[in-house]
Amino acid sequence: MPIRYEFERELNKMHQQLLKMGTLIEQSIDDTIRAMKNQDIDLAQEVIQRDDEIDQMELAMETECIMLITRQQPIASDLRLITSVLKIVTDLERIADHCADISEYVIRLFNESYKKPLEHIPMMAQQVKKMVKDTIDSYVERDICKARRVIKDDDIIDQYFEDIIKEIQDLMKVEGTFITQGTYLIFITKYLERMADHATNICEWIEYTITGKLKHE
Amino acid sequence: MPIRYEFERELNKMHQQLLKMGTLIEQSIDDTIRAMKNQDIDLAQEVIQRDDEIDQMELAMETECIMLITRQQPIASDLRLITSVLKIVTDLERIADHCADISEYVIRLFNESYKKPLEHIPMMAQQVKKMVKDTIDSYVERDICKARRVIKDDDIIDQYFEDIIKEIQDLMKVEGTFITQGTYLIFITKYLERMADHATNICEWIEYTITGKLKHE
Repeated sequence: MPIRYEFERELNKMHQQLLKMGTLIEQSIDDTIRAMKNQDIDLAQEVIQRDDEIDQMELAMETECIMLITRQQPIASDLRLITSVLKIVTDLERIADHCADISEYVIRLFNESYKKPLEHIPMMAQQVKKMVKDTIDSYVERDICKARRVIKDDDIIDQYFEDIIKEIQDLMKVEGTFITQGTYLIFITKYLERMADHATNICEWIEYTITGKLKHE
Repeated sequence: MPIRYEFERELNKMHQQLLKMGTLIEQSIDDTIRAMKNQDIDLAQEVIQRDDEIDQMELAMETECIMLITRQQPIASDLRLITSVLKIVTDLERIADHCADISEYVIRLFNESYKKPLEHIPMMAQQVKKMVKDTIDSYVERDICKARRVIKDDDIIDQYFEDIIKEIQDLMKVEGTFITQGTYLIFITKYLERMADHATNICEWIEYTITGKLKHE
């Protein structure tokens, strides 16, 4: 088989694996939002289990990327792509980690109802999900404008973060029994903010694969 | 100049840059601890400014690693090393980021004295600093046992984390005016825990450069 053909086949496999990982992670974000809203402990458990699967995918893809670099002596643009994927899978895996982290808090909160129905946290989570979806799309479509829009959207997340923390603090101040729950909700909000940061990192690497220019915000 | 000699020179430069980055980060952790304990706003500002310098170093090293892989067609063990450094610099940079994040909270807290003298947070921070120092040492000495010990030490950090959060929650419950400060201290504790996680990630990559086996906890 001609070497270039073989290489294209391997690259294509790498893309497919990354997409599969992306799809699983979108599913995890959806499930995390539902588990959180409905206090669904079984769904939270599913998210935590799925994280193990995604960890394995990260490991397999890292190994695959390094092998591709070693075996095939790729040209510069392919090398940019492979090294980017090597970085991107870590950020993707961290997003899945944080879904699992949030699900752990959903489980901890299972025995008590929310002191105030969750409103802004699920909205923030939906915005994070949109960013992750747009990130995967911009990778598939090699759409630099979409990638840049995701980076810009991080401002919306930062605003949600500030507002939600303020809201939790205010409720803690008037309602002493809310302290423990409030602390858990603070961690959940923090994990959501980190997930958006990881999407932003990925978009910077997507931009690099297209332009060859690496920059971090 | 013989190609191998040139390559060794470049590798050596890469090691030196990584060490320089490591030293700056240890300095940042030290300064963050001091800024936090003494509510020293100038020192906190210094940490934040140094983060920009470290960001630039990360970018330069990533570019350098990719160039090394492209130009020199390295053998498998060198390639393992270079791809590991490509991953390691991101985790190092995140540690510096979190020093800056903590320093931001030190500045926010400047106008009010601590409701209770900080005790366990600086102890946790010292433990994080030790982990980061051991991480850099295990890279320099290619000491797999030291790297594994750092990974194990993460349990100490997790215990600190649980205890400190509990302590903050307890104080919040009896002292309503502590809520805002307590929230900031929760974030600081969370950043310290993340810093230890990044040290752990780096040690996994150090282990990989030595054994060729990649695993993530």
